[in-house]
Amino acid sequence: MQVKDFYVSAPGKAILHGEHAVVHGKVALAVSLNLRTYLRLKATTTGKVCINLPNINAFLCWELSQLKQLVNALAVQRLDAELVKRLREFIGVTNGSLDTCNMATLSFLYLYTSELPSLTVSVWSELPTGAGLGSSAAYSVCLAAALLYANGSIPPPLKEWEHTARWCQEDLELINSWAFQGEMIIHGNPSGVDNAVGTWVPRSTKVLVAGVKDKINKFPSIMGPVLDSVDAISCTCEKVLSEMTCEPITGEHYNILEELIDINQHHLNVMGVGHPALDTLCQVTLAKGLHSKLTGAGGGGCGITLLRPETDSLIVQSTVQDLRDCGYDCWETSIGGPGVQQHSPIAIKEEILEILNHY
Amino acid sequence: MQVKDFYVSAPGKAILHGEHAVVHGKVALAVSLNLRTYLRLKATTTGKVCINLPNINAFLCWELSQLKQLVNALAVQRLDAELVKRLREFIGVTNGSLDTCNMATLSFLYLYTSELPSLTVSVWSELPTGAGLGSSAAYSVCLAAALLYANGSIPPPLKEWEHTARWCQEDLELINSWAFQGEMIIHGNPSGVDNAVGTWVPRSTKVLVAGVKDKINKFPSIMGPVLDSVDAISCTCEKVLSEMTCEPITGEHYNILEELIDINQHHLNVMGVGHPALDTLCQVTLAKGLHSKLTGAGGGGCGITLLRPETDSLIVQSTVQDLRDCGYDCWETSIGGPGVQQHSPIAIKEEILEILNHY
Repeated sequence: MQVKDFYVSAPGKAILHGEHAVVHGKVALAVSLNLRTYLRLKATTTGKVCINLPNINAFLCWELSQLKQLVNALAVQRLDAELVKRLREFIGVTNGSLDTCNMATLSFLYLYTSELPSLTVSVWSELPTGAGLGSSAAYSVCLAAALLYANGSIPPPLKEWEHTARWCQEDLELINSWAFQGEMIIHGNPSGVDNAVGTWVPRSTKVLVAGVKDKINKFPSIMGPVLDSVDAISCTCEKVLSEMTCEPITGEHYNILEELIDINQHHLNVMGVGHPALDTLCQVTLAKGLHSKLTGAGGGGCGITLLRPETDSLIVQSTVQDLRDCGYDCWETSIGGPGVQQHSPIAIKEEILEILNHY
Repeated sequence: MQVKDFYVSAPGKAILHGEHAVVHGKVALAVSLNLRTYLRLKATTTGKVCINLPNINAFLCWELSQLKQLVNALAVQRLDAELVKRLREFIGVTNGSLDTCNMATLSFLYLYTSELPSLTVSVWSELPTGAGLGSSAAYSVCLAAALLYANGSIPPPLKEWEHTARWCQEDLELINSWAFQGEMIIHGNPSGVDNAVGTWVPRSTKVLVAGVKDKINKFPSIMGPVLDSVDAISCTCEKVLSEMTCEPITGEHYNILEELIDINQHHLNVMGVGHPALDTLCQVTLAKGLHSKLTGAGGGGCGITLLRPETDSLIVQSTVQDLRDCGYDCWETSIGGPGVQQHSPIAIKEEILEILNHY
């Protein structure tokens, strides 16, 4: 146990294009958000392990002596179903359904039991939970980084004179593989996109996950080309975003991004994953000249709206108000934030530091 | 001049699927409507040629002696631009733009000048003009059939004991080729679908016409698959309609037709040919459980709404009322009516016969 206070953060993600099509082997374009989850790990001498999750009002402590009885061996890379079962009994959840708090707890304990020091973990997130913005992956990535650091599996990347640092590729791979374990506990069959974005922030990720939609099986000759079109949208968007990082950004770049959003929103409706609430989102924002689409699972959930640099802040404010009046929550963010990072306390926003250090 | 009273009719058409995609070499599915255009040709001894078009309040007569001076030779198969120019001068329209009346007149005179007997033609149509329902083609087909009959190029197919009859294949080809001449006068560059439907009623027609959309050139990898999907929609719809003619019709047949309508309406919006008025049409009818899409050129124009056999007539009435309240005109019809036909007077609805015989 080499740890004193240790701060780490990881970003949430949004799928710009390719949700659902990715299930059929098409390219999806996932980007990191500048909304992050922050974790503080603090060594203690209490003989207890504690986790504080103020976002969901969960504050839990266990005696190390009790927890140690559960653990026979370390689970490495592959989920140890027997250990998960024993941990579920330990926290008193033996039935099938787990709420957010139970899943976060189980994920923490599973990752934690690879080592059993006395410590307290506090986590605060800027991300909404359950909205498809990768909050669980950001949580798992932070946990994996902190606990791998705590048991000496990875070094602290932060030099004394630095405020923020990232790990080397090999360490990131270890963090990602453990974060994926946490995601498996929370989601059952995660795509791996979310923890990969939280760890690395690749611009484009091609993954295959199980599951096929009835509609796509019903009309293969009609739906196959729609998936190809979505694939091309993801690739075109990736190309435009790349151009925008190395060329002068023009209005035409944003025009294309808007067109891609509109086309894909129609395609998602064609794929049967739309929802009247998301159509309303599109109408409300279009009335202000802003283009939106659903993001992630669809059928409700979360949408994204593109803000152009020249969009007047009064327009943004009145759009947010219109959306709130319709019962929506809104978050304003940019895309392309860094993956998992260690921070010195000085690099963390004061209000977040205050929350993390409160416990 | 063998003619006494001669009655002929031809149907309008609707494009069920494939409008716009057809421009890019994809299959379009055009069907005939049970809304028809009726023509009566009456031999006279007045030395005049007269055309009566009560739908558009056009009642015109010319002295044969004057008209004969214009005609040097018969134009066969290929539009005689010089004759068109002389006819335009004759009816006093030398500027570029022709209104419906001028186009109908010019088309009539051009077809008429293949022979120059003294006669009166009266036409009445159940079809709206300029809505993309093939009213001009139905008019051209009726004119071609009547005038080819009048100059002895085709025989009357009606036997003494029959009420309605169709021509043989060879005669239909002649009618269609002349009707296409009329369409060229009216539309400049017609696809040939409308006169083919009016003459033959093929279920599916594949045609190539000039013109490409900017959006399709801008995003070929995105829009190409959308066109492929539209192509598959047309083929799937054709297959379902075929099944419905030879198998027991089930609710699932109509479910598929509804899904195809919804998907294609999204595709048409993706192709940039939608219009807020057509979105409103879709919303108003969907509120009553009915599925709609634009048909034809889009960007306004005409939409089609599928009525299932079990749809309550009260639902239909209230939907029509809602649409009228939004400023739309509505026509209720079935699809698949016969192509061009000769009728005995007894086979024509009394109110239409009354209109035709009034002049």
